[in-house]
Amino acid sequence: MKPINIGILGLGTVGGGTATVLQRNAEEIERRAGRAICLLSASVRDLNKPRSVDLSAVELTEDSYAIVDNPAIDIVIELIGGTELARQLVLKAIANGKHVVTANKALIALHGNEIFSAAQTKGVTVAFEAAVAGGIPIIKAIREGLAGNQIAWLAGIINGTGNFILSEMRDKGRDFASVLAEAQQLGYAEADPTFDVEGIDAAHKLTILASIAFGVPLQFDKVYTEGIANIQGIDVEIAAELGYRIKHLGIAKRSARGLEMRVHPTLVPHRRLLANVDGVMNAVLVHADAVGPTLYYGPGAGAEPTASAVVADLVDVVRALTTDPENRVPHLAFQPAAIADIPVLAMRDVETAFYLRMQVEDRTGVLADITQIFSQHKISIEAVVQKDSKDQKGNVPLIILSHRVLEANMLAALENIEKLTSVSEKIVSIRLETLD
Amino acid sequence: MKPINIGILGLGTVGGGTATVLQRNAEEIERRAGRAICLLSASVRDLNKPRSVDLSAVELTEDSYAIVDNPAIDIVIELIGGTELARQLVLKAIANGKHVVTANKALIALHGNEIFSAAQTKGVTVAFEAAVAGGIPIIKAIREGLAGNQIAWLAGIINGTGNFILSEMRDKGRDFASVLAEAQQLGYAEADPTFDVEGIDAAHKLTILASIAFGVPLQFDKVYTEGIANIQGIDVEIAAELGYRIKHLGIAKRSARGLEMRVHPTLVPHRRLLANVDGVMNAVLVHADAVGPTLYYGPGAGAEPTASAVVADLVDVVRALTTDPENRVPHLAFQPAAIADIPVLAMRDVETAFYLRMQVEDRTGVLADITQIFSQHKISIEAVVQKDSKDQKGNVPLIILSHRVLEANMLAALENIEKLTSVSEKIVSIRLETLD
Repeated sequence: MKPINIGILGLGTVGGGTATVLQRNAEEIERRAGRAICLLSASVRDLNKPRSVDLSAVELTEDSYAIVDNPAIDIVIELIGGTELARQLVLKAIANGKHVVTANKALIALHGNEIFSAAQTKGVTVAFEAAVAGGIPIIKAIREGLAGNQIAWLAGIINGTGNFILSEMRDKGRDFASVLAEAQQLGYAEADPTFDVEGIDAAHKLTILASIAFGVPLQFDKVYTEGIANIQGIDVEIAAELGYRIKHLGIAKRSARGLEMRVHPTLVPHRRLLANVDGVMNAVLVHADAVGPTLYYGPGAGAEPTASAVVADLVDVVRALTTDPENRVPHLAFQPAAIADIPVLAMRDVETAFYLRMQVEDRTGVLADITQIFSQHKISIEAVVQKDSKDQKGNVPLIILSHRVLEANMLAALENIEKLTSVSEKIVSIRLETLD
Repeated sequence: MKPINIGILGLGTVGGGTATVLQRNAEEIERRAGRAICLLSASVRDLNKPRSVDLSAVELTEDSYAIVDNPAIDIVIELIGGTELARQLVLKAIANGKHVVTANKALIALHGNEIFSAAQTKGVTVAFEAAVAGGIPIIKAIREGLAGNQIAWLAGIINGTGNFILSEMRDKGRDFASVLAEAQQLGYAEADPTFDVEGIDAAHKLTILASIAFGVPLQFDKVYTEGIANIQGIDVEIAAELGYRIKHLGIAKRSARGLEMRVHPTLVPHRRLLANVDGVMNAVLVHADAVGPTLYYGPGAGAEPTASAVVADLVDVVRALTTDPENRVPHLAFQPAAIADIPVLAMRDVETAFYLRMQVEDRTGVLADITQIFSQHKISIEAVVQKDSKDQKGNVPLIILSHRVLEANMLAALENIEKLTSVSEKIVSIRLETLD
């Protein structure tokens, strides 16, 4: 089947990330989509700017209209940001019968009703997963995964910059201004941080979430928005003492009295998962009548996380254009002909860290004997803790955490250690994963 | 457009839940799917058993074959469980050209390759979101939402019973046997808990997750499986002291050396979100090359949570059969004609709880004046904390947490309190949400 041709408007952070991911994962993406994706053309602000991704096969232009008007291009990826030019280009692409993928939350929040209506009329898709919560597939989860539910409310940490600032204020007892300055230096916050800290960016995203959750038009102007610039260190501290954390939440809620859409700093009980979403990460908690609470967590911004959502949308469109509707998504995610037979490792060949507990004689030399055996089997030790609670035989628990090690080596070492007369029982071993 | 006719095989816990959700949310589901769903027929073990859902419009039968052979039925929902009869019925439904939705993890893990191949040949869908992690749309997230990524590994708490037992052991210092007995009483654990505590149920689900993450055939027999029956209270306790929690994880990982598929108890650092997933909840953490870590959390079992996934699959199939592929999912989740104009509440009309901090004179009577004003505005107080750190004027911070209250009432109360001479500065007020 001939490849799908796409064009990207804007090769900034997200555009560059999208080109990179499409290139690096081309084979994997084709195995899933059933068709190759060819980046034919991209528009840039400056043709001469050096770029980190290889674009030798891509036609670069400074004229975005050349892409939306190019009859060879099937799908346009809008990543230039802003609302005016982006709106014009997206509407032109739709008028030209092209599908559109965009990461532009302001565009959708402000002009989505107009854009979707045009797309509906023209029979094309405008996909916007990347517009909310970056790489988290939250649009798909709500629009499709929860389609059997009446959604009661959702609450999200949907601005990474704001969450980074509040996390740092709490963790390090710092004040708003100094953390903001650092976030700007680290590139987490823009030189003009208004959109982030005043909650406007979060309000754009909340507008979109509320519409797809409740089936109401996009109405950004009705979102109540309060920023985090006035949050003081003392309140972060007192909230913590009382068992709460302060998070900048976007909340959409449906009640008998009407709809709520609001973005504001919020105290949240510290045991809630949402309270434990720190740094630049995003998360959205959705309460729905059948499923109850579900939560979606991940990076809310950044070149490749956002590209992940852009490419997912792209694969969605490509699948719709490529296969029968009944088999749009292959059962096992990859096309049947592309299923690979990767060998499965036996457990002996798997590497994990270990927690070990053994009952040992409480005398010098015992630990030396044991560590000697670990060393012979190339096992390195992360921590050793000896407990002083003696059992009937006068033996004490010795706890060892190992670094990652081949299971076969660990089993051999444990067999030898169990032969020591100073070790009285079968060793308890539980695998340990740091999950990083 | 005429309704889609469906038949359900098995009206047990999940079957009953599915019938209930389809009935209660019929209007909302039709607004999303663009077409009504009509439950035409259901098979049951005992026609005379009383049921909590109104089935007066549903033809009940004790013969499941009557449903898969019924030419009026478009989609068959398989919820009888087990692998032999279920396999026969699903294959027969496919042969008859019907789409199938199933929640049967054992069926998919053991016979999925055969079933999907038959479905592919026949051009029908077999959807199985409910087979893994109940109501969490994890299949959709991996198959579609992360389609641009190479997935490196995933780790999941995918058995609620096991997680409930380990959570109780940690929280209450109890031993395995006594918690298991309680879980059986509460209905979280089966009379024969082998599938849950030995990790077989988790291995079924992991088999499915590994296939859709890496594009490999389903191969349940290659999953390494270790249960939690040997986990002792002392290890749960020592792990906690060392900063870890013991979780029963299913892990699938791809490395240059091959594929890992393993289910075993695992120490996890306590700060990880996965370590904080407690009770019967499930969660899956996925690490992928472009997006990085994403996590999906929610109820992994139960009548309506599982029904939520079944109905989502159903809506997916109905959408594919109803609309153009390019507009399979409406932009705003609901069909354009079904977008509703629900009024948006002004912030004054919204109810939340409040955190309040005021600087007050350190003398008797002040608190009485303040609580008097709250009482006049029908605001009830959850907690009052007075700090003894005096500012330059000798005033001290008074912190009040309110119950939920109409914002307009709170604003009026705060205005009156700020007029008191004993209150020296503008009151800091931050909204508080318990998120339950």
